[in-house]
Amino acid sequence: MGQQELKKPTEDFWDKYQPGLAIDCVIVGYHERELKILIMEYENTDLYALPAGFIEKNEDLDTAASRALYERTGLKDIYLSQFHTFGKSDRNDTEAMEIIMRSNGLDFDKDHWLLRRFVSVGYVALVDYKKVKPTAGFLSSQCSWCDLDSIPPLIQDHQKIIDKAILYLRDHVDDKLLGANLLVDTFTMKDLQKLHETILGEKLHRTGFHRKMMDSGHLERLGKKKTGKAHRSPYLYRFSSDKE
Amino acid sequence: MGQQELKKPTEDFWDKYQPGLAIDCVIVGYHERELKILIMEYENTDLYALPAGFIEKNEDLDTAASRALYERTGLKDIYLSQFHTFGKSDRNDTEAMEIIMRSNGLDFDKDHWLLRRFVSVGYVALVDYKKVKPTAGFLSSQCSWCDLDSIPPLIQDHQKIIDKAILYLRDHVDDKLLGANLLVDTFTMKDLQKLHETILGEKLHRTGFHRKMMDSGHLERLGKKKTGKAHRSPYLYRFSSDKE
Repeated sequence: MGQQELKKPTEDFWDKYQPGLAIDCVIVGYHERELKILIMEYENTDLYALPAGFIEKNEDLDTAASRALYERTGLKDIYLSQFHTFGKSDRNDTEAMEIIMRSNGLDFDKDHWLLRRFVSVGYVALVDYKKVKPTAGFLSSQCSWCDLDSIPPLIQDHQKIIDKAILYLRDHVDDKLLGANLLVDTFTMKDLQKLHETILGEKLHRTGFHRKMMDSGHLERLGKKKTGKAHRSPYLYRFSSDKE
Repeated sequence: MGQQELKKPTEDFWDKYQPGLAIDCVIVGYHERELKILIMEYENTDLYALPAGFIEKNEDLDTAASRALYERTGLKDIYLSQFHTFGKSDRNDTEAMEIIMRSNGLDFDKDHWLLRRFVSVGYVALVDYKKVKPTAGFLSSQCSWCDLDSIPPLIQDHQKIIDKAILYLRDHVDDKLLGANLLVDTFTMKDLQKLHETILGEKLHRTGFHRKMMDSGHLERLGKKKTGKAHRSPYLYRFSSDKE
């Protein structure tokens, strides 16, 4: 999606893309016991948004989401899950959109396709924070990580989209894929507990958590972590592969 | 939505409705230990489908779903939940759509809006089987209940939409609202267990189920069911109201 696309008349744009439909991606990383979200900043506007995408006429919805994710992160084949479709009739933020378009020197009329109503399908992606190369998008936007608890005011209903994505993660916190995508390959039980606590936003009881995780059958215990003090070192774990 | 709407040129239809977007409703009832689904039949075509709807330009997505549901069932203010959006690029079934349109004596060209690609938002509704008045829709369709395990072949990906809705219900089987919407006001523990077993498609252990339900805090025990044999009569329960 480049500046050229934006200059297209609405009919031409609708010819290439599914009209009135967008994708918003909540791209989540985990680093130093904080959840991080990838946020776009439109230069010279003080306006912030989630990374978004459009769906090509002959493209599967999931493929369009993977493509949007790849364009912003450089990553492929990662955990990506649709969680909710946002369709309030007043969710468009025409004023913000006009500011962004003007700051890009774009001529447009009031009926420009980008100013019309969009319904947006929300996807949540779990990525390895260190592997991501945040990449700028169209409309002179920069892309960077924000801590979940210090996200700037976002355009449209994007904060609600993030809130709903976090509720989705809470509902799926015991899903093996969730931990496997946010933690490094091997981790201590304490690392795993901290991840769960960060997602759930509450403290968990150590022994209860340990038992539940071992009962899940998803974890494989490896050797002790090398710390120089063997008798006090914690064990390392990894998620068992599917065939086990 | 009447025959007049169908005769509209695509541009006029897109002026009134959100283009390329539909709603499909999986309307679920429960009767004599069977889950029932409301299915539309297009007369003289042998074609079956889920009840569907379109979203007006200035209408919230949820409102459009409520409207579609009301039009087919005569019911308002019932459990209705969005569960997934279906967006495979090949999900349209042009051939079936053309048969349906022809059987309604409708003139159309290959570019008619109803033949274009639609992304569809799936909603599941839980209704009181006895209160529903199934009501015919547009395109000469009849609407009637089918047992979940004997649904005729459906057009498009509608069977997949039902399958996904049932998985959603399984994930939410412990949700108080689910039971409260599918059972009559008071019920025995056995009634509740049968409902859970029907949704989950598996037998549950009686004492384990009983304990789990009582631990949930959602149930209120009333008097014994009047059967004439007081010492063997089961207790009646109801779902406790939110304030309790």
